[in-house]
Amino acid sequence: MSEKKGLLIVLSGPSGCGKGTMVAEILKRGDCAVSVSATTRAPREGETDHVHYHFISREEFERRIAEDGFLEHAQYVGNYYGTPRKEVEEMRAQGKHVILEIEVQGAFQIREKCPDAILVFTIPPTLDELRRRLHKRGTETEEVIEQRVARAAEELPLAKQYDYIILNDDLQDAVDDFGAMIRAEMLKPAYQTERIGEMLSC
Amino acid sequence: MSEKKGLLIVLSGPSGCGKGTMVAEILKRGDCAVSVSATTRAPREGETDHVHYHFISREEFERRIAEDGFLEHAQYVGNYYGTPRKEVEEMRAQGKHVILEIEVQGAFQIREKCPDAILVFTIPPTLDELRRRLHKRGTETEEVIEQRVARAAEELPLAKQYDYIILNDDLQDAVDDFGAMIRAEMLKPAYQTERIGEMLSC
Repeated sequence: MSEKKGLLIVLSGPSGCGKGTMVAEILKRGDCAVSVSATTRAPREGETDHVHYHFISREEFERRIAEDGFLEHAQYVGNYYGTPRKEVEEMRAQGKHVILEIEVQGAFQIREKCPDAILVFTIPPTLDELRRRLHKRGTETEEVIEQRVARAAEELPLAKQYDYIILNDDLQDAVDDFGAMIRAEMLKPAYQTERIGEMLSC
Repeated sequence: MSEKKGLLIVLSGPSGCGKGTMVAEILKRGDCAVSVSATTRAPREGETDHVHYHFISREEFERRIAEDGFLEHAQYVGNYYGTPRKEVEEMRAQGKHVILEIEVQGAFQIREKCPDAILVFTIPPTLDELRRRLHKRGTETEEVIEQRVARAAEELPLAKQYDYIILNDDLQDAVDDFGAMIRAEMLKPAYQTERIGEMLSC
């Protein structure tokens, strides 16, 4: 049997609910990869081109939008950010499950363009716990923390439109949930059809 | 959080591909259960009422059909066989995942009546291996074995209409696939919604 195409998994969830830590753990599996986003903003200190982002000009970004070169894109504070379609497709063709950490609107854009994308929403145990984690992280002011908690409360109802909801209370449980989801997705007919075809010819 | 309703899982697949052994292993998990079918045929030696089947009269069976008391039913060789709806619903309400081992037409009947049913098709590695297993079992004549292999070849394309396809080559792998599928299904919004509602009220 030829190597199977990898899954495309979009991971969303409130800031502070541990998506980054989850992804770092998941990447240890070896069959998953993350894609590098493109942006028009200037690199910050310590950021390397093609590692943290593909830093490209505004003209280049707009040319690629016109060519349908992004699975999703958005503007924040005057800069473009986007997920390059070709890079994701190449990794999937190599059998890697590609994980994209993307906010809600981008996730729905990707579902439009790739109906086989799997949308996963991570949630904290409670909004109080989310607030506690953001305080512990200590990188935001009190005001920003309250804005994030309010934003999370607004976004949570959208989780129902995702394919899966993973509670990130215990990190290992959440990572195991993610692994079970990948295993289950690969049992779906779209992934198994090749094998059935082979059986019929035997 | 109140106890969650169990899943309803329908398991189909060619005779000889190891469904029974798989179910026996899965039942060791403790959170799964099988439902006892009803039938109008006479008990065979060694069969106990309410253990192997609920043995009921033809009149009683037809009365229950009229009351929509079965999730699916069919006639074989002049006898009725069916899955009692109430029993399945009670087990699910107790949080048990109910596994029904049912052939293809019955599986599709259940999907009609219970859109949340999960349909799983088990396949042998190859039709040659299926033939070998049926020979090894030694309970069927050569002719019956060839009929079963031919029937399997006919049914395999229907596997694509199932939600999941599990290859039963290594038993433990197949059981682990089944476990991953249960875990993933419980991450779906229909099962997680209660938690999100709670979070919003905190």
